Amino acid sequence: MPDLEALKEQAAVPAALLVESGMRVGLGTGSTAKYAILELGRRLAAGEVRGVVGVATSDASEALARDLGIPVEPLDPRPLDLAIDGADEIDPGLNLIKGLGGALLREKLTEVQARRLVIIADHTKVVSRLGEKAPLPVEIARFGFLSTIERLRALGLGGRLRQPGAQPFVTDNGNYIFDAALPQAFDPATLERQVKGTLGVVETGFFLGMAELAFVASPEGVREVRGR
Amino acid sequence: MPDLEALKEQAAVPAALLVESGMRVGLGTGSTAKYAILELGRRLAAGEVRGVVGVATSDASEALARDLGIPVEPLDPRPLDLAIDGADEIDPGLNLIKGLGGALLREKLTEVQARRLVIIADHTKVVSRLGEKAPLPVEIARFGFLSTIERLRALGLGGRLRQPGAQPFVTDNGNYIFDAALPQAFDPATLERQVKGTLGVVETGFFLGMAELAFVASPEGVREVRGR
Repeated sequence: MPDLEALKEQAAVPAALLVESGMRVGLGTGSTAKYAILELGRRLAAGEVRGVVGVATSDASEALARDLGIPVEPLDPRPLDLAIDGADEIDPGLNLIKGLGGALLREKLTEVQARRLVIIADHTKVVSRLGEKAPLPVEIARFGFLSTIERLRALGLGGRLRQPGAQPFVTDNGNYIFDAALPQAFDPATLERQVKGTLGVVETGFFLGMAELAFVASPEGVREVRGR
Repeated sequence: MPDLEALKEQAAVPAALLVESGMRVGLGTGSTAKYAILELGRRLAAGEVRGVVGVATSDASEALARDLGIPVEPLDPRPLDLAIDGADEIDPGLNLIKGLGGALLREKLTEVQARRLVIIADHTKVVSRLGEKAPLPVEIARFGFLSTIERLRALGLGGRLRQPGAQPFVTDNGNYIFDAALPQAFDPATLERQVKGTLGVVETGFFLGMAELAFVASPEGVREVRGR
């Protein structure tokens, strides 16, 4: 049985094959997205595609892309032809939870501009409802964060401030992350509005109605899932 | 006819008289709030009140309070007994626009915890509808800000990025400010939800239903306006 790393790569390769010459491509962040960047670099080096430009969702992905000779540009208001990224949870409608890596705001701001968002994942990320396994990362302002967390608890969210060591985790944008435990039953669009509308919340890890296609790799092979 | 500085002070003094011994008081930011802090410092020094603690909405207000001998504590989840602050616009229902000074997030996070928010202003801040004279400051993430501004324009907002010199203005939280020109007719609560719900927006300068009382000073005297 293949290990998870092999499955991640198996999901990433067909997504990278969607990249065509001249495309501007959003480059995701994380242990699965990494394989898509590697495959895109290989295709560019092999001359299978040319004139591709990457728009990175993290400093780490930008550095990897540059190492592989993929030109990287900052995000501007033009649409991206394609974005490829992993996810922490994928529901049957291709609604996602993302942000366990801490890059949710930059990922969301980038991928909302993509004509197609393609998700790549191993089968352990597939859930029947969002929140089944993963918390919902919620990016919150540092100032007054304890009160913001109380407001989130008043919405019925459990969970805790992300704090891997002595200090809370700080995002690229200088904010904290509250890893929210989701209730048993909820409507994602309603909860997204409530959480994002909460004073002190910068953004949530819900990616609803954004993904068009997912490649999900399991020991039985790679399955395509279509959304929106 | 008194000049505006004199009017600001005339509005501030009765607000500072609401402070009682032992209260935790939110200290606003700006050219009018300054006079309330000065008056509170005078009352403490004169022994008219004791055991008052300030919670400041900006580094400038904290420094002023400390200079005056007012003890200052950071915001925590406990309610504040009172908060006193200025506003950029005040409508007949005591809905406000704030944030021309750039401290809107910290002000909003602090003042939402106040049992009473008291606004002090000269008469030039009173409008019949919000947006009549002032733009609505909207705090937005720096990453992808041009696209965020396009999303705000799609909501019908004009305006521009706040950029006093060669570089955009950066808030205490490391974000930019978009000074939005409001449409002729709109429902503030609906627009607040739409703007705050926009990807890339951190917070808006609408303070709706938060203020309980305003002292408005004009050449004719100080008028009390009651809200919510």
